[in-house]
Amino acid sequence: MNASTPFATQPSLSPQQFVDKVIGHSETHSAFNNAKTCGFGEAPVNIALSKYWGKRETSLNLPINGSVSISLPGLGTQTELTLSQGEHDQIVLNDTLLEPHVTFAKRLSAFLDFFRPNEHAVFHVDTLNTVPTAAGLASSASGYAALVLALNDLFQWHLSDQKLSLLARLGSGSASRSLFPGFAVWHVGSRTDGMDSFAEAIDTQWPELCVGLLKVDVSEKAVSSTAGMQQTVNTCELYQAWPDKAAKDMELIQQAIANHDFSLLGKTAENNALSMHATMMATWPPIVYWQPESVAAMHAVWALRQQGVEVYFTMDAGPNLKLLFLETQKPAIKQAFAKMQIIQPFK
Amino acid sequence: MNASTPFATQPSLSPQQFVDKVIGHSETHSAFNNAKTCGFGEAPVNIALSKYWGKRETSLNLPINGSVSISLPGLGTQTELTLSQGEHDQIVLNDTLLEPHVTFAKRLSAFLDFFRPNEHAVFHVDTLNTVPTAAGLASSASGYAALVLALNDLFQWHLSDQKLSLLARLGSGSASRSLFPGFAVWHVGSRTDGMDSFAEAIDTQWPELCVGLLKVDVSEKAVSSTAGMQQTVNTCELYQAWPDKAAKDMELIQQAIANHDFSLLGKTAENNALSMHATMMATWPPIVYWQPESVAAMHAVWALRQQGVEVYFTMDAGPNLKLLFLETQKPAIKQAFAKMQIIQPFK
Repeated sequence: MNASTPFATQPSLSPQQFVDKVIGHSETHSAFNNAKTCGFGEAPVNIALSKYWGKRETSLNLPINGSVSISLPGLGTQTELTLSQGEHDQIVLNDTLLEPHVTFAKRLSAFLDFFRPNEHAVFHVDTLNTVPTAAGLASSASGYAALVLALNDLFQWHLSDQKLSLLARLGSGSASRSLFPGFAVWHVGSRTDGMDSFAEAIDTQWPELCVGLLKVDVSEKAVSSTAGMQQTVNTCELYQAWPDKAAKDMELIQQAIANHDFSLLGKTAENNALSMHATMMATWPPIVYWQPESVAAMHAVWALRQQGVEVYFTMDAGPNLKLLFLETQKPAIKQAFAKMQIIQPFK
Repeated sequence: MNASTPFATQPSLSPQQFVDKVIGHSETHSAFNNAKTCGFGEAPVNIALSKYWGKRETSLNLPINGSVSISLPGLGTQTELTLSQGEHDQIVLNDTLLEPHVTFAKRLSAFLDFFRPNEHAVFHVDTLNTVPTAAGLASSASGYAALVLALNDLFQWHLSDQKLSLLARLGSGSASRSLFPGFAVWHVGSRTDGMDSFAEAIDTQWPELCVGLLKVDVSEKAVSSTAGMQQTVNTCELYQAWPDKAAKDMELIQQAIANHDFSLLGKTAENNALSMHATMMATWPPIVYWQPESVAAMHAVWALRQQGVEVYFTMDAGPNLKLLFLETQKPAIKQAFAKMQIIQPFK
């Protein structure tokens, strides 16, 4: 149960050097000279249709495989950022001031360390999630994307989307994709400085596409995505076959998007998600995010498909299902899953 | 979702040639000269601790990987066999005469075709299963092992255990292991005539070892093991990593048995079973034998382990769990799973 891990790479920059390089800290004007009083950022959650699972480098958050996602408008994070002086950052999440030792606050402050204009600077962060935190609905993706946008606004950097995506990636891998509405592709990259591993928008609309959020359990998950993927990379022998599969699925998903080939999109996304969960289960100790209700929901989806309703699902590192279907199937889906929230990302 | 399949081999014998070679049909005395009126065979079910999943050749039932099992005394098949003349075989399963077109009867008669003394010979088969048929409790393993023993008795072949195992393998792969009480190892073999792919007993007793049968659902399964594994081999990209993993686990299980190292046995068996199920899930269409109750039972096992009760599980191609634990944990296990049947294979 100890897999060989030929995936690790050595970074050629520290995270701080990476940040400085992205925002141009060493240029003639200071990167912090034009700061406003208050910065604002807003970003949607995104759902990967072809998943990110595994890091080749942890300090720069470099992935082992690329991924493709769809953002969900209306679900995400809004963040206000102000600079001040004090002992430590003040982080308000959904109107509640967090204790500084709370994991969420510690992780956020560690990220903000890369952006302090001077050693006494602290931030006041006011962040509002419209998705339950840590519920497998990728609130860290929208969270770090919104935070980077707020930093960009606060310090008036006017960074390109590509640079914003690079910074968001440092906060949370999948945040690199949350800078964009609609479809986005996060390139795996190959450079040891991580400068080529960013996401960009896929310029395709698909108004008929629907995403259903089938919530099984929205409580905090026992194993974080980061811990889960590291454990998988380190101990799952089946993971050896994942990078090639992920690369192939990524191509298929992009092809499906370009051709509006819904069957290809759905099959590939469902198979990709189940394959990712497969690598987790084959890990020691096993990582099974599924709850009994997750399996019941899967069987319900397959039963619908057997009846001719073309619906597929995807799942992130959590127990919830996200259904994929076209607008024409909406009545049948609504009948089967009455309480489910349905989003049409392009409408 | 079309995996390359470098696993297929070409057989150098037909199944009939294989059978003739094993029982020595071409020797001076006829293989059927000494037939008794009635043959009897009895064999236990077995549970693989390191699983068989995937065939490199289907007509001779040659596996892609070897496996290790434990037989469960008291659970299995008893079969009586008589020769007669008539239109077709008469197959009685658990006191019910089956219609000849029923899958179970057709498969059994096709196997018996290899053993008819002449073209008019038909068999009367009276078989009694003490496990529910097709419930993931490997009734085909005990069934074909008992049938081969009954044939050996009926025709008075006096075949060696190795030859009996070869014949049983032709009926159902895992039946090769059901010829033996206690632990057995089924060698993967490499010959194209299949003569080196047989099981043999591992000569180790382990009186403290307990197996708990946690029944979730004992109805007939939707996808047979044979269909499931073929689909996995053909379409699951993660399966590429399975044969190496299976070979490694097989060694670890044998090491654990030799050293009475229960932790190693349990971890390896659970990880191996979850890895096999992982390859199924990552197949298209997905094969998920799990029911909601299967997942609930897994979480219950993990919760017990967290509380310090050393218990592991394994699962075959079905929704049921088989728990592994030592006698010292029996009271704790009985408390958690009150109705569960517990077997001590060596007591």
